[in-house]
Amino acid sequence: MPTVNAVVATSATDPLTISTIERRELGPKDVRIDIKFAGICHSDIHTARNEWKGTTYPVVPGHEIAGLVAEIGSDVTSHQVGDRVGVGCFVDSCGECAPCKNGDEQYCEKGVVQTYNSETYEGEFTHGGYSQEVVVTEKFVLKIPEGIELDVAAPLLCAGITLYAPLKKWGAGPGKKVAIIGMGGLGHVGVKIAHALGAEVTVLSQTTSKEEDGKRFGADHYYATKDNDQLFKDLAGQFDLILNTVSVNLPLTSYIGLLAIDGALVELGVPENPLEVAAFALLTNRRSLSGSMVGGIQLTQEMLDFCAEHDIAAEIETISADQVNEAYDRAVSSDVRYRFVIDTATLANA
Amino acid sequence: MPTVNAVVATSATDPLTISTIERRELGPKDVRIDIKFAGICHSDIHTARNEWKGTTYPVVPGHEIAGLVAEIGSDVTSHQVGDRVGVGCFVDSCGECAPCKNGDEQYCEKGVVQTYNSETYEGEFTHGGYSQEVVVTEKFVLKIPEGIELDVAAPLLCAGITLYAPLKKWGAGPGKKVAIIGMGGLGHVGVKIAHALGAEVTVLSQTTSKEEDGKRFGADHYYATKDNDQLFKDLAGQFDLILNTVSVNLPLTSYIGLLAIDGALVELGVPENPLEVAAFALLTNRRSLSGSMVGGIQLTQEMLDFCAEHDIAAEIETISADQVNEAYDRAVSSDVRYRFVIDTATLANA
Repeated sequence: MPTVNAVVATSATDPLTISTIERRELGPKDVRIDIKFAGICHSDIHTARNEWKGTTYPVVPGHEIAGLVAEIGSDVTSHQVGDRVGVGCFVDSCGECAPCKNGDEQYCEKGVVQTYNSETYEGEFTHGGYSQEVVVTEKFVLKIPEGIELDVAAPLLCAGITLYAPLKKWGAGPGKKVAIIGMGGLGHVGVKIAHALGAEVTVLSQTTSKEEDGKRFGADHYYATKDNDQLFKDLAGQFDLILNTVSVNLPLTSYIGLLAIDGALVELGVPENPLEVAAFALLTNRRSLSGSMVGGIQLTQEMLDFCAEHDIAAEIETISADQVNEAYDRAVSSDVRYRFVIDTATLANA
Repeated sequence: MPTVNAVVATSATDPLTISTIERRELGPKDVRIDIKFAGICHSDIHTARNEWKGTTYPVVPGHEIAGLVAEIGSDVTSHQVGDRVGVGCFVDSCGECAPCKNGDEQYCEKGVVQTYNSETYEGEFTHGGYSQEVVVTEKFVLKIPEGIELDVAAPLLCAGITLYAPLKKWGAGPGKKVAIIGMGGLGHVGVKIAHALGAEVTVLSQTTSKEEDGKRFGADHYYATKDNDQLFKDLAGQFDLILNTVSVNLPLTSYIGLLAIDGALVELGVPENPLEVAAFALLTNRRSLSGSMVGGIQLTQEMLDFCAEHDIAAEIETISADQVNEAYDRAVSSDVRYRFVIDTATLANA
């Protein structure tokens, strides 16, 4: 099997190291991708450090992958060598259950095959995008439209679809008021997409330190929530949709109080402790506390096309493969504007 | 002002007593109702015993009111003397805010005027249906169709609309799987309505003690949840909608695990402690934990008409006014099938 260089996590506590992994031989429906860039998502860090448990070592993280098609299997019809392509959070699903048939592969009843730290239906262990190459069955390979550079496209494959899916599902658009809690790797893309969809966008951040950026990304309003009880009174009942991109436990009852009739607060991350909300806050205004997890393949392609059409891309800081450990620490302390992306060319000489 | 007999709560701890209260003089838009029956709702007990705090004594509970029009004001056009009518949980709203204009008076931004323990916009303190008469502005008086007796209609004014509203909102109907947690005063009406709407109905009750009734009311399935972990595995991902009629804190993460994609668990009551749910349970299948509080006037009329058309009414145990305290104790211990209704004629000689 082909051997390629990759950034590998070998335990929950040791630094990630550059090493080699094997990729599978190209099957008839497979696409071999020459990876150019891989975004660093918080999920990568949680997995590398075994913070969600269930990590199998060694593992290569990375599910925000952008590159070029290097080779295609004999039955591949939808991609050509040289095509600009991306891979997101999953690389296979059963294709036969109701969710798969409805384009919700992420909720596949057989269990979606995740891009890394997962087992394929054939028993292969998956490794992610911090690598020179990856082999993926064609259906799970997305087209990155002309007009988005590959480096700034990479984070759209997870962060982009994670925000686009609930914005579409809950009807963000003209006349709708959308709030986004947190303006990090997820949130900053959400501001751009929500604005492009025509919604009135508010950022609820701990401080106003990123306000200038937020306004530039398309936010109409930007508020600091820290020690600001008055804000929650002033904005009570205002929003049709609130997307929570922050993975720490927030005082949800206060945030849900900001929702208008039939409004929803959608959780996009998984905080350590259970969510807590007063029932009264939900009964009032018939509100919902909901969850959303990335999006299906067709919707992800729609998102990429939408972003290209509206000049939307992630704001990134590009790093070399040997800077991953430092980047992890900085990402955890929110010291990045707004997403780290590994230039995988730096793996060539490793 | 007219004086009428009523069942009055005078403190959180003293028994309710039969006494007199004053009703306002008939205004031009008012309807004076000769109350025939008043249902006993758990909210009445919470209020009488000040369990939600905020009770002003003395107060007359009761917001499941059925009776006959005794007199109408000079400008009343929608009701005639002798009409069979009902009054539910609220008796006025501003009529001008967006919720009021959308038929969601219960979420009036100025604050809906509740049928009892509330203050009208004119400063009058409201008393509820455990009484001989009530005066209500015509818009908030519902028509009880021929074909439903007044005694079994009374509970529909709160229990009926509390279930009908979320069943309609979340699309219960043919091809949809609906579960109802708890088969008490609320739940038993929910089973009947959900069945009449064409949904496949499952009751999730602590035990199977009411299974025969449940099947008679229209349940397709009836399961005991107590000490039944296997049930939560067997039914995982099955339901499009779960209505929780139980006002104690349940292990919500387990119940939410029963929801299919885009499913919602809707809370209809207010348990003592905050609701707790693992974020992961919401992200999986894009589920929602929602709340719903009765329904607007137009929808309540629709519900009454629907119930008449489908021969739906509450199952009741009729009591006299002097049995209210005993009935409260029995209702708290779920010893009623399925709703107590006060025959207010028994107030005449009190």
